[in-house]
Amino acid sequence: MKKHNFYAGPAILPQMAIDNTIEALKDFAGTGISLASISHRSKEFVAVMAEAESLFKELLNIPDGYSVIFVGGGASLQFAMVPFNLMKKKAAYLNTGEWSSKAIKEAKMFGDVVEIRGKDFSYIPKNFDVPQDVDYFHITTNNTIFGTEIREDFDCKVPLVADMSSDIFSRPVDVSKYALIYGGAQKNLAPAGVTFAIVRNDILGKVEHKIPTMLNYKTHIDKESMYNTPPVIPVYTAVQTLKWIKEMGGVAAIEKLNIAKAQLLYNEIDRNKLFRGTVAEEDRSIMNVCFVLNDEFKEFEDEFGKFASARGLVGIKGHRSVGGFRASLYNALELESVQALVTAMQEFETQKN
Amino acid sequence: MKKHNFYAGPAILPQMAIDNTIEALKDFAGTGISLASISHRSKEFVAVMAEAESLFKELLNIPDGYSVIFVGGGASLQFAMVPFNLMKKKAAYLNTGEWSSKAIKEAKMFGDVVEIRGKDFSYIPKNFDVPQDVDYFHITTNNTIFGTEIREDFDCKVPLVADMSSDIFSRPVDVSKYALIYGGAQKNLAPAGVTFAIVRNDILGKVEHKIPTMLNYKTHIDKESMYNTPPVIPVYTAVQTLKWIKEMGGVAAIEKLNIAKAQLLYNEIDRNKLFRGTVAEEDRSIMNVCFVLNDEFKEFEDEFGKFASARGLVGIKGHRSVGGFRASLYNALELESVQALVTAMQEFETQKN
Repeated sequence: MKKHNFYAGPAILPQMAIDNTIEALKDFAGTGISLASISHRSKEFVAVMAEAESLFKELLNIPDGYSVIFVGGGASLQFAMVPFNLMKKKAAYLNTGEWSSKAIKEAKMFGDVVEIRGKDFSYIPKNFDVPQDVDYFHITTNNTIFGTEIREDFDCKVPLVADMSSDIFSRPVDVSKYALIYGGAQKNLAPAGVTFAIVRNDILGKVEHKIPTMLNYKTHIDKESMYNTPPVIPVYTAVQTLKWIKEMGGVAAIEKLNIAKAQLLYNEIDRNKLFRGTVAEEDRSIMNVCFVLNDEFKEFEDEFGKFASARGLVGIKGHRSVGGFRASLYNALELESVQALVTAMQEFETQKN
Repeated sequence: MKKHNFYAGPAILPQMAIDNTIEALKDFAGTGISLASISHRSKEFVAVMAEAESLFKELLNIPDGYSVIFVGGGASLQFAMVPFNLMKKKAAYLNTGEWSSKAIKEAKMFGDVVEIRGKDFSYIPKNFDVPQDVDYFHITTNNTIFGTEIREDFDCKVPLVADMSSDIFSRPVDVSKYALIYGGAQKNLAPAGVTFAIVRNDILGKVEHKIPTMLNYKTHIDKESMYNTPPVIPVYTAVQTLKWIKEMGGVAAIEKLNIAKAQLLYNEIDRNKLFRGTVAEEDRSIMNVCFVLNDEFKEFEDEFGKFASARGLVGIKGHRSVGGFRASLYNALELESVQALVTAMQEFETQKN
């Protein structure tokens, strides 16, 4: 039975990217050596790293003056790296969920944090004022847990820093609006283990405290992500995914597909008598669609989970902090998989109604 | 032509470990989902992480009171994590080469460092005194660049911390002598991207400064290496490598093979008129064998490189800071590959003599 992979991350990747990685594990670039065992200093792998950087710049149309780096440790390590590199005294954070909250917790170790938040995480706060005396303003563009998303690149008078772990490459981004964009790669890009950062070079070098070498963006920029051994396999797979995005027509074409997939599922959630969405309509994520059973059908939650699972729908259990269901519709998920979920929801409704 | 992989790291891994990883990339544990796309919270991957920990404990005979964790970022990140977690005021470091030097550089950001070193890196200093008022004493057991190795687990009156990136699992280790052992996995264990740490629990919680969450060993111990998304593929491959070590008879059996391989090559270096070793005989590494051409044959260095390369011998160029040649003989390298190198050295000698 075909499995439809709705996991929130690590998540579905293009089959082509996985197939090419398998081939490279057998024999990398004709070297006769496995990708798992190739030196990162070999000219063949140095070329892969350079291609990762250039495909990022091409696909996201990154302006001059920015560097792209690949490091280990995950976005959670970036929560500390951002203030280590950028905070002199004070920063502002938009708190839109668990990941923002974790980023804020780390930032508080380095200075004052102005926290902007709504009454809960079911929507994105609007019309807030960002203090003008902060070193930067941090946002999390997509909330994988609650299913909200900031899909506009807004103007900001202070340096804007964005965690785009779960929506990078899902849409065109106006990188010029940001001072720093970072993210774990394990959603739209690569297997877990590599983290990217897109850094506007002029924001660095302004803090007075010392920065551990590995936590200093400059270290990795100066050494082109080869200061220490990079996560070779995830970087290779990322390049394959980026090539796939290019073949698909780039991020603008990908965005259209993503909107179509999300629309199909949200329409069903809104139509189906059993289910309802959990967040404000205008802030709905096109990556992570969260929904619950209406109160009168709550008792059927486990049953729907099993019903879906029996149809090969994998990974739709909601995060423990929200409950219900979450379907993650990352770039590589096909419309057919969303249709399979919608059909299951319809059949379940017929059974219960 | 068969390639003999002498790279210093990332390096040769057991073919079984690579083959099993490829199978898991096609279908992980019968889930119908690729290892590249499986949730780290799936019960199947949680079992892999648990197996990584239990195989570490079994193969290294790790006593009670120690935790084993897997994180990202590489050993270079550990250079900062060690003082972050352990240094109150002062630490001692044995400087045996470039990696020790880098670890010392980071430690100096956190307090006073007493550095113990010889006149150069061609030998391991002996009979030194470790100050008794330090928070820990740090050693690098194997120097991949110069080819020296500390192969004895000595008594130390202060907590002993060891970077074993390049010789973990090459021999039995008396873990009870150490407070902390860490290392990047990309030599004897896994593809690049995962770092292990074996931590004696009672050494933690003694510093007064704050530790960023991701840099705190306790974070990863408490969450069983699942605080954030771990590097899924490298952890999986590591488990396959550990199973292979077990099948081979464990680390004691592996050590015998390693000594036989190293002896074969060192004997040839000592016998061959063209070459000489670069480090003190008693400190020779069994993992990284460094050698150069004798002065009167220096002009043939590039030629021997090409001569070896034409025979499928890959990765024997010495590190840029030492020059000459370096053959890395990690666990998975077969005696046959060392024999191929020895034969090349003999044939080259015949040509030139």
